[in-house]
Amino acid sequence: MLSIPVDDRGLAYGDGVWETIAVKAGNPLLLEEHLARLQWGLEALRLKGLDLTLLKQQLLEACSATERGVLKVIVTRGSGQRGYNPVGLNEPRTIIQLSPAPRYPPEYASQGIVLGLVTGIRLAYQSYLAGFKHLNRLEQVLARAECEAHWQEGLVMDHHHHVIEGTMSNLFIYTQHQVLITPPIEACGIAGIMRAQVLKLAQQSRMDVRIQNLRVQDVLNAHSVFMTNSVIGLWPVREFRQQHYVIADSIQTLQQQLQPYCL
Amino acid sequence: MLSIPVDDRGLAYGDGVWETIAVKAGNPLLLEEHLARLQWGLEALRLKGLDLTLLKQQLLEACSATERGVLKVIVTRGSGQRGYNPVGLNEPRTIIQLSPAPRYPPEYASQGIVLGLVTGIRLAYQSYLAGFKHLNRLEQVLARAECEAHWQEGLVMDHHHHVIEGTMSNLFIYTQHQVLITPPIEACGIAGIMRAQVLKLAQQSRMDVRIQNLRVQDVLNAHSVFMTNSVIGLWPVREFRQQHYVIADSIQTLQQQLQPYCL
Repeated sequence: MLSIPVDDRGLAYGDGVWETIAVKAGNPLLLEEHLARLQWGLEALRLKGLDLTLLKQQLLEACSATERGVLKVIVTRGSGQRGYNPVGLNEPRTIIQLSPAPRYPPEYASQGIVLGLVTGIRLAYQSYLAGFKHLNRLEQVLARAECEAHWQEGLVMDHHHHVIEGTMSNLFIYTQHQVLITPPIEACGIAGIMRAQVLKLAQQSRMDVRIQNLRVQDVLNAHSVFMTNSVIGLWPVREFRQQHYVIADSIQTLQQQLQPYCL
Repeated sequence: MLSIPVDDRGLAYGDGVWETIAVKAGNPLLLEEHLARLQWGLEALRLKGLDLTLLKQQLLEACSATERGVLKVIVTRGSGQRGYNPVGLNEPRTIIQLSPAPRYPPEYASQGIVLGLVTGIRLAYQSYLAGFKHLNRLEQVLARAECEAHWQEGLVMDHHHHVIEGTMSNLFIYTQHQVLITPPIEACGIAGIMRAQVLKLAQQSRMDVRIQNLRVQDVLNAHSVFMTNSVIGLWPVREFRQQHYVIADSIQTLQQQLQPYCL
């Protein structure tokens, strides 16, 4: 196991960003998109000094012999003295880890999962830190703890009763009127790479696609519901709070179109 | 330099808590208070398995030969697999670091500092994570980056224009009517150990002490303003946004009463 010095600011303050990238047949999937989000985070944190071309090369090399796996890259602000001040720290530390592909039951993708509602913690509004994947993830840890024992995934709300995302995935609903909706990720939440891919494909297919606030009742009223992330791909939801859903044909089509980008 | 494995959840998610403790003449100051806040954090994060008696012993030993210094302890949820789920991880990792006492100019304590107003980032409301010192500190990092070049300390606000605290310290104002006020730490901010000590001493001295919301104008209207933390002790503020302050006699008295707990 690799190690890092304990004065690393990723440990001290969560001062860094990360990406989780699916690997198939030696290729990191949607690599450019992941690198673009990583760079967004680096800019938001004013974390300087990373050679993105070198990082890309390292990531390609790390997984070139891997048939199926998950590549995780963490970039921290590197070592620092005591104190929050990040100014003048321009030697980031890069950590690359390759794991086997997770073995989720195949029926999660084919028949759907049970989704719950997380009530113990809500996502705070912090527009400055929303969207990209930084290392401050206690909200997700606590949400996941609540979800783990009961459901395959849990919906997390903000303080205004909007459902924002899953503990580790983004939310989409497909309404009775055939509108595809996902919540905005501007004040909290993560702008998933697979979410962006779904939005792109759905627009290309001329579906009616909207980014708008959703509440629990909107999810309950939906025709189909599904969750996405870079590792799971697209999981339909078969049940949420005693409501049962079908998998709409157009959602199955989307799932097939996503295949090249999924494990 | 000590190191930790890269699968530590403190690095991955900021999944842990920490304390910074001043050391004088071989003694960690206000150790019981720091350990109590640490325990509060462990409970909030449901981070189990730490032997607090052993930790206390380790901290006492670590600094027994140190005349003046700063002890930092980090407790993470230890190593974990990929994924947010914390359930079942009951082997926390403890990291103890001893640093020399910082060399702040002595006039910061005697004549006061220049305080600014941080405008680039605000503290998010997250009552579940407020008060204790967890490892998700990006808000403080970004606030400190703004503050560093201009002032000795910067006030940070919430989204409702309340001033909550400094980037690394707690705020107190002493009004023209001799009321000592510090903002509540219920939705965001850190419940400083030195802040609690000031509140205790001021109440013992029968001062009129209140915990209530403050705005920028309240700070500007104050007779005296000061900042506290466990390492700096009490720093009076001499200037904030072109407003100049005197150091009230009762604030100087408080500062003297705090001496046993300060470097």
